[in-house]
Amino acid sequence: MRKIILASHGELSKGLLHSAKMIIGDLAGGITTFSLYPGEDAADYALELRKEIEANKEDEYVVIADLSGASVCSAMMPLTDYENVKLFTGLSLAMLLTLLTEYPGPLTESDVEELLKTGKDGIENVCLEVREEEDF
Amino acid sequence: MRKIILASHGELSKGLLHSAKMIIGDLAGGITTFSLYPGEDAADYALELRKEIEANKEDEYVVIADLSGASVCSAMMPLTDYENVKLFTGLSLAMLLTLLTEYPGPLTESDVEELLKTGKDGIENVCLEVREEEDF
Repeated sequence: MRKIILASHGELSKGLLHSAKMIIGDLAGGITTFSLYPGEDAADYALELRKEIEANKEDEYVVIADLSGASVCSAMMPLTDYENVKLFTGLSLAMLLTLLTEYPGPLTESDVEELLKTGKDGIENVCLEVREEEDF
Repeated sequence: MRKIILASHGELSKGLLHSAKMIIGDLAGGITTFSLYPGEDAADYALELRKEIEANKEDEYVVIADLSGASVCSAMMPLTDYENVKLFTGLSLAMLLTLLTEYPGPLTESDVEELLKTGKDGIENVCLEVREEEDF
């Protein structure tokens, strides 16, 4: 079974889950969010999560953190020592929706590459002119 | 003056703003969020925004939408006909923080490319092993 954890400074993680549920409903069920608030230490949550992972080694854990190199991501990084844990950064609605709808099974290396590409491709500068040209 | 609008299905936009404020405080002040809820039409908000843009043509509007090609982004796209409007997709904390802290003035084409790169580079698969190797 897969467990997804969205982890962020503040409420980005909660907001992302709300949006995903609005778009794909129950397919976004069972996701955990972690929001770091001022005065808290992300390492405390990472410790809790480590205990859960230790107790559920047959599950796949996909942790998606907000910012590469920032405190939430850094606290989660030691968890990637477990083979059943994958850690992504750059919380992205496109990536989350694709993960939920197109990759139900344990993620292979090529799945990971495809997911990263989906997230990156979703970041665009859009203007009407370009779109109209694409129609021709 | 620049006006930033974060626009999403559901509460991703609000969550993102909350996180940005937690990290950079007042630098994330004065940002507007739009959340589309079930039964609403993003075109109604786009119409309101069009009136505001018409009345403030000396301002720069930077709209960041959640998903390329989805209804919120599509409703905003006609606004890019105005020269003072830029529309990005893929709401990203990395991109928003960089916009707020490193690009105070009107965005040039190269600024836009740099911002897109910041957002894309922020989407990673992270593991402890890779990070340790980078330390050498």
